[in-house]
Formats: sequence, structure tokens, C-alpha cells
Amino acid sequence: MSFFGIFPCLEGKKVLILGMDGYIGWPLALRLLARGHQVTGVDSFITRRRVREVHSDSLIPIDSMAERIRKASRTFGEPGFVRFDVTDPRRLYSILEKEKPDAIVHLAEQRSAPYSMIGLKQATETMMKNIVSTMNLIYATKDIVPESHILKLGTMGEYGTPNIDIPEGFFEVNYHGRSDTLPFPKFAGSWYHWTKVHDSNNLMFANRLWGTAITDVMQGVVYGTRTSEIESSSSHTRFDIDEVWGTALNRFCAQAIAGLPITPYGKGGQTRGFLSLEDSVQCLTIAIENPPKNGEYRVFNQYDEHYSVNELASKVVEVFSSLYPDRKKPGILHTANPRIEKEEHYYNPENVKLRELGYRTARSLETEISIILQDVMKYSGRIRRLKDVIMPRTSWKESSGKSAVAGTEKKK
Amino acid sequence: MSFFGIFPCLEGKKVLILGMDGYIGWPLALRLLARGHQVTGVDSFITRRRVREVHSDSLIPIDSMAERIRKASRTFGEPGFVRFDVTDPRRLYSILEKEKPDAIVHLAEQRSAPYSMIGLKQATETMMKNIVSTMNLIYATKDIVPESHILKLGTMGEYGTPNIDIPEGFFEVNYHGRSDTLPFPKFAGSWYHWTKVHDSNNLMFANRLWGTAITDVMQGVVYGTRTSEIESSSSHTRFDIDEVWGTALNRFCAQAIAGLPITPYGKGGQTRGFLSLEDSVQCLTIAIENPPKNGEYRVFNQYDEHYSVNELASKVVEVFSSLYPDRKKPGILHTANPRIEKEEHYYNPENVKLRELGYRTARSLETEISIILQDVMKYSGRIRRLKDVIMPRTSWKESSGKSAVAGTEKKK
Repeated sequence: MSFFGIFPCLEGKKVLILGMDGYIGWPLALRLLARGHQVTGVDSFITRRRVREVHSDSLIPIDSMAERIRKASRTFGEPGFVRFDVTDPRRLYSILEKEKPDAIVHLAEQRSAPYSMIGLKQATETMMKNIVSTMNLIYATKDIVPESHILKLGTMGEYGTPNIDIPEGFFEVNYHGRSDTLPFPKFAGSWYHWTKVHDSNNLMFANRLWGTAITDVMQGVVYGTRTSEIESSSSHTRFDIDEVWGTALNRFCAQAIAGLPITPYGKGGQTRGFLSLEDSVQCLTIAIENPPKNGEYRVFNQYDEHYSVNELASKVVEVFSSLYPDRKKPGILHTANPRIEKEEHYYNPENVKLRELGYRTARSLETEISIILQDVMKYSGRIRRLKDVIMPRTSWKESSGKSAVAGTEKKK
Repeated sequence: MSFFGIFPCLEGKKVLILGMDGYIGWPLALRLLARGHQVTGVDSFITRRRVREVHSDSLIPIDSMAERIRKASRTFGEPGFVRFDVTDPRRLYSILEKEKPDAIVHLAEQRSAPYSMIGLKQATETMMKNIVSTMNLIYATKDIVPESHILKLGTMGEYGTPNIDIPEGFFEVNYHGRSDTLPFPKFAGSWYHWTKVHDSNNLMFANRLWGTAITDVMQGVVYGTRTSEIESSSSHTRFDIDEVWGTALNRFCAQAIAGLPITPYGKGGQTRGFLSLEDSVQCLTIAIENPPKNGEYRVFNQYDEHYSVNELASKVVEVFSSLYPDRKKPGILHTANPRIEKEEHYYNPENVKLRELGYRTARSLETEISIILQDVMKYSGRIRRLKDVIMPRTSWKESSGKSAVAGTEKKK
């Protein structure tokens, strides 16, 4: 039993996780339970459905929520759970009335950049789901639990790739001989990433209006299959490897195991902040246990190290080769970039605030890649079934509204 | 007949005005027709309905669209018109297919800051209407008329009131010894104003994706009752004076005529860019007749002069007193500020681009106020009926989602 478990009245918090069924939501729930917090989750299971729509599935099989809760309860304590979509304000108001959480973690957004770029329908759906859920959260918190802490997941992708250092949210601007502290200008790279910018702006304004305490997390790309609680409960989190729902490093590991070439998009000089699932859960827990001051809006750049896509591809090849010396070394195949982005650029975001609160990298990149490769190896039979969906098909350039308005297309 | 009327093939453009029934939409349609352009309009008449919902009405009575079109046709030529809501992508694709416009002016958004601050329902409605209509326009233009020019109405309110000069959209940022040209950081003051920031960001990204030619107009607060075409056609545009749909200077003129005190909010040091309706229509016409280069996204700060609310109140008193020396001088009554905003601040936005293209102020502020006062005087009998809705009631601080979720409120 954890320290907070022994003294729950002293430090244990009531935490509501919106999107508890997700890649990060589930391991975060386990971590918070393990540390003696009370956890209630919400999810509409829309990601499970959306992933099936692109004929894919989590590479690592995942339990139903009922089974997840049973496994968590055996080891750490029982989380509450209610199924609904956070775009419904009535249900959200209702659960805040019932639970009166100290902190609310918002992970219940459409989280795929390629999905948002398929066409107008998906772009609009992403705008609506993400913005409406955040507006509902803003108002429900203000009306029901105004002292509560909103922890909102944004993305490092909100900043784009400016040719200057990226501060943590705000910076001093000098212009024409005067100065002011202003939000850092953002330039996102997909409709999905822009919804996160819009959410960040709306949250910053909610704080200005009503003093709502907010942590806005600009998170890097997350990779990995495990946290310590996933290991001890055998309750896996999802692991997506398709071009729509999977992210770079996770996909590369799956390609290596499947004997497919690793496919950086374009030149592969694109550089991003990355962190492991273990570190993501560590950082979010730190943010929850060290809430902002009353009335504070704070921004964390939440990542461990930045790497170019080429560096990650090489790392996967290197770790794979030392782990499986007898197998053929994976090739690296630069494919046409389906995105519109700079393929060589300066990149230097600041990330000191979480380290000041105690964040330390849990495992080296090499160790983490080794763990992912070994976990993926166990399910390599499923990769063969999924490999048709690994290669990029969703093109930023070709994104169109024509299928959304197909009823009028007959004239063309 | 105008110059372009004589040589339509030379310069006359096909212009689609989304929101043609509005305060700016209608006089813009008249101006473009008068200058020999072909105009087609779209409107859902939602502003007419929404204004009635707050028990108000346009102070100056306005014709039905059918009657507007008859009056316009007699003097300038016949505009096309189709009634629909631009949040419906099918109808928008369909009209672009039919009209193939050279320019599309997007004035079809929810345009009231107080309306957006009533509560969660109105905040979400404003987000959705404005963002979805702009996304539909972005995709429809890309798919159907990719060479067309999008002219989008944003607001100077997107910038907020930073303690430094405000450039026209972009500026050079120096940080930690490096520099880049970046979008100017925005900080809007209502959910409505934030939707305009979100739209601007989405448009800037559409330009990055597909090279769509876009003019993003950061417009100041518009005042006035007339343009030259309104005079020659006797087809008035709407003139709102209530706290939700009316804007500062127009409301102040109505208060003076009604014998009510003029009511700056708070200290009245709030400074904003202002321009007359005549100048707004002049500027938009300049933008249409001088489109951006292929692939260009340009930002215009569209205002004539900046004034504090107190300066405007004093001007109205001064002009009123010289116009009506025998009537009682209007009082100035500082009312509690329903908004959350700085009431004393630095303000210096740049606005050179439109002047470089030929924009010149049509009339002095004093002359314009004099015209407004005289026009309002003709309808002073209607002010008495409307004066209950002039004083501020919509409070930024009290904005709530409770009525939107009233179904769950019984427990409270």
C-alpha cells in the first residue's frame, strides 16, 4: 500500500479522468490508484470504434473496461467509471456534482492528426469534439467545482517548428522599443493540432475570466507499451501501429519486428519532443500532486528529449540488431511525406518546469525501445494482419470535402 | 454606369457574399453592384431572429430581402440571392459550383460578443457556427474554386490590448539571440472574439496547406447608418442599439437622442480601433479589387482611428450639443463594466496596408456622428420602445452553463 493509501485524508486526491480508456488514460488511472488517489473515469469508447473503422486494432489486445476495472481492483483499488461522451454537457455537470473532484484530467479528445486530415467531415468532427468537450469542461468546472484543477492535454505540435527557442507557454516580447509578456505564437501542422491550439486559447481565457486553475500540457510524442502498474496488473493499454492512430516510434518498432522497412516520412529531419508512456504518466501525476496556485494558468512543455525521425529510425535498427543479432537488420525506406511540414529545421523547446517539480527520466530511449520490441514480438502474428494499414495513405495535400457533400457531387 | 460596368470583362468580378443580409453585408453588396461587379448573396436571416430573441430590433426599419433586391435592381443591378446557413457544406459546395466566384466574402458568422458570453449554450453555438462555416468555406474553395480569393472578416479584438505595438498579422520575433517571423500572439476578450482567432488560425493553415489566397481582415468597431449607395437606393442597413447586438458609438448616439445618459463601461479608458460603415465598405471593396497574390495569406488591420470609449462619449455630447443647441446636453454615466477587460492601457496597432492600396477616410468622426444623430432622430419614437434593452445585462463574470443543463439542475 502506498504512502497516500496509508494517509488518504492527508494527500489522496479525487481525480476524474475524461478518456480513461485511452493509451494514456488507462495507465494514468492505474498510477493514481497505486498512489492512493480516488479515481473515476469517463469514456465513450470512440477510439476503439474509430480504429476499427480504418480496419486496424490495438496491436496488443486490450481488455474490456469491466475486465480492466477487475484487474485494477485486485492490485490497486477500484476506479469508478461512467460511459458517456464529454460533448454532452448534462452528463459532465452531473458527474462533477456527484464526484466533486479535486482535479479533472481531460484526455477525451480526438487525438489523431491523420484522422483530422482525411477530409472536411473528419476535420469538422475533430474541431467540434475537441472544442465542445473543452468548453463543457470549462463551464462545468466554473459552475460546480470552481476550486478544482483542470489538467488539459495539449501537444508540443501546437508550437510548430519556429526558428527560435520555444518557451513554456509565455515569453517576453520586445517590439518597437516596448515589451510585454505574451503567449508564444503557435503554428500547428494539422487540423487536430490546431484544435489543441484553440483549446489552449479557450482555457487561457477561462483562467482570465474566472481564475480557473489550469495546467495546459504541451506533450511530446509518447512511445512505449508499459508502466510499472501495467506490469504488476497485467492490464495492458492499447498500442496502435496503423498510419492513422499509431505514432512514429511505436510504428517503427512494429515495422522492425514484422520484417518491414522502417519508413521515415520525407527526408526524416523532422524533429519533435518525445517521451515514454512511463514518463508521461509520471509527469501527469506530478502535475496532479503539485497543482497550480489558485487562479494560475500554467503551461508545461512535457517531453524528455527531442529527436529527429531519422535518429529514431536508426535507434530502432541499432537496438533491434543487438536484441536479435541473427535476424535480418531492418531497412530504412524514406517514403513520400503525406504531411506538409519542414523536413529540416531548428528545434529547441524549453522544458524545465516539470524537472523543477521532480520529474526524472525513468528509462533510457534504448531500454524503452528494447522493451517495446520484446512486447511487440509477442504479438508479431497480429502485425501480419495489420501491416496493410501501416503505410501512409492520408495525404494532407489531397484532403477534401467532396465525400462529405457527396449528395451534390453528381453534377461534377 | 460605373467604369467597371462599361468594361465588365476587364475588371468586373463575380463576388459571393456570405451574410449579405447583415449590417455590412448589405451595403457592401450595393457598393460592389454600383462598381459593376456581379454579386450573389447568401444569408440564413439568423441575426434578424436572434435580435428579436433579446426583445430588440433594428432601430432603423429594414426591408425584406426581396424588397432589398428590388431597390438595388432599380439603381445598380440585380444581385443573386440564396437562403441557407453556411454551416451546411452541401449548399455551399453547390453555390460555388454554380457561381464560380472570383472572391468570397465571409460575413456569415455570429457577430456579437455579449451573445457569446450569455452562457455555455451561446458560447458553444458561437464556436460551432463560426468555426464550421469557415471550415466549410476553406474546403469548398479548395475543392471547387481553388484560384478564388477568400475575404474573411475577423476583428481587431483578436489582438487584445498588448503593451506593445500591434503589427498587421506578422512580426519579427527575437528570442535568445535568434529571430523568426511569426504570427502576432493574440489574446481576445470574449468567446466570440476567440472564434475569430480560431478562424484566423484555420485560414492561415489552409493557406499553408494549399496556397489558398486569403485576406484576413482585423476590423475595428464599425459605426454609422449610411453609405452613398444606401442614400441613393433608400435601402437601409440594420442599425442595432441594444446591449447584445449594438456597438459602442451607435448605442451612444441612440442614448443621446433618447435623452438617456451615455454609458461608457467602467472607467472608459478602453481604447479600440474604429471606422465608419462607409470606410468599412470602401476597405472591403479595395481588398476585393486588389486581391492577394496567388498563394498569399495577408492580414489587414482595418480601422481608421483609435479612440477611447470616453473620447467617443465626449464627441457624441459635443456634436449633439452643436446640432441641437436647444436640447438638454446628454449626461455621461459610467456604469459597472459587464466585461472583463483593461480599462486603461497602451494601444497602438499599425494600419498602413489598406492606405497603401488607396484607402482614404471618407468623412471625419464629427461629420459621421452628426449623420448618425440625424438619422436616429427620425426613428426616435422607436428608441423609447427599445431603451429597456440598451443598458448592459450580459455579465462576463456571471456567464454560466446552468441553464444549458437545466435537466440536471433539480438536484441542486
